[in-house]
Amino acid sequence: MDTLDALEQTIRQRRAADPETSYVAKLTARGRAKIAQKVGEEAVETVIAAIADDRAGMVSEAADLMFHLLVLLADAGLSLDDVRAELARREGLSGLEEKAGRTA
Amino acid sequence: MDTLDALEQTIRQRRAADPETSYVAKLTARGRAKIAQKVGEEAVETVIAAIADDRAGMVSEAADLMFHLLVLLADAGLSLDDVRAELARREGLSGLEEKAGRTA
Amino acid sequence: MDTLDALEQTIRQRRAADPETSYVAKLTARGRAKIAQKVGEEAVETVIAAIADDRAGMVSEAADLMFHLLVLLADAGLSLDDVRAELARREGLSGLEEKAGRTA
Amino acid sequence: MDTLDALEQTIRQRRAADPETSYVAKLTARGRAKIAQKVGEEAVETVIAAIADDRAGMVSEAADLMFHLLVLLADAGLSLDDVRAELARREGLSGLEEKAGRTA
Repeated sequence: MDTLDALEQTIRQRRAADPETSYVAKLTARGRAKIAQKVGEEAVETVIAAIADDRAGMVSEAADLMFHLLVLLADAGLSLDDVRAELARREGLSGLEEKAGRTA
Repeated sequence: MDTLDALEQTIRQRRAADPETSYVAKLTARGRAKIAQKVGEEAVETVIAAIADDRAGMVSEAADLMFHLLVLLADAGLSLDDVRAELARREGLSGLEEKAGRTA
Repeated sequence: MDTLDALEQTIRQRRAADPETSYVAKLTARGRAKIAQKVGEEAVETVIAAIADDRAGMVSEAADLMFHLLVLLADAGLSLDDVRAELARREGLSGLEEKAGRTA
Repeated sequence: MDTLDALEQTIRQRRAADPETSYVAKLTARGRAKIAQKVGEEAVETVIAAIADDRAGMVSEAADLMFHLLVLLADAGLSLDDVRAELARREGLSGLEEKAGRTA
């Protein structure tokens, strides 16, 4: 199984866990706004690592960002597959546009 | 192939494309800071959609965020697999911690 | 009159202006979320200018950030004086704490 | 003296204080990127309070944002007056544009 899907499955299971022992359960209990805030904060840290060209930091912060994005999606009953479908749809459209461009 | 990996491959190919016809090439030509800025902006929009409980908006903004994060990683010669490896490593550590906790 | 207060007064007047000719009116018409998004975006740009040690950029982006923060506060019927009062209150508390610390 | 200018003066004094007792000195010692990160984080919190229409939260987060923006400007040897001058310059240009628009 893809690491991201496995992580998403783990996150869903931990949402109902004990907030005393699970970070996901604790963050989820604090509510949607707090989860969203973490997504914003990790994005800021990813931006800073990128500008500083700190490659190890970029991987670490991008991992934090992905993790909290998955927690946020799960909180809304959404999944990474919903995001994949949206990206695939766009690429499909983009492909069509390029094809149309070629024939034009 | 996983949609995200296929997208990443497309992004790498388009980096060297004509900035006149490719968004990835155009954004890449504007430099690291501009790509990072887009990651920050899309994160802000994801946060706003999440707080407003706009589920369609969350999928759309999360897709924008993922897309630009892949462009940023590619700009540093990094890949989604680097992020997956970091997340797997953490989960492994977390698994060990939980196991240690159970036996303690 | 302080430049920031004069700007705040101008912003309040322009909120009711024609969105065709006034940026403040146009942004205000797009709603709270869009104004908040601009605050987030300008903060990201301020962060990037600061990390790049681009001093002229920092002044320009901080001005953008201040401007949009004033538009956001005005949209909620709040003013820079509300923010000043909160900061003065904290400094007052801080002063008391420091005094208490000195006598301890 | 304006509260913001008084706060800026206090921040400049505290930069050289003992990091054990002064938050400004402690944050400054952690470096430009960490100060910038705080600006980004407080902006995210301001955005969230604004979307949730939490007016007390907006004042509190806007105060946090202003405070850290002043710390960031001070770290670059810049001041709120530099930002005021930039805003005044723009308003002046804007005034000229409006005048030009009226005579057109």
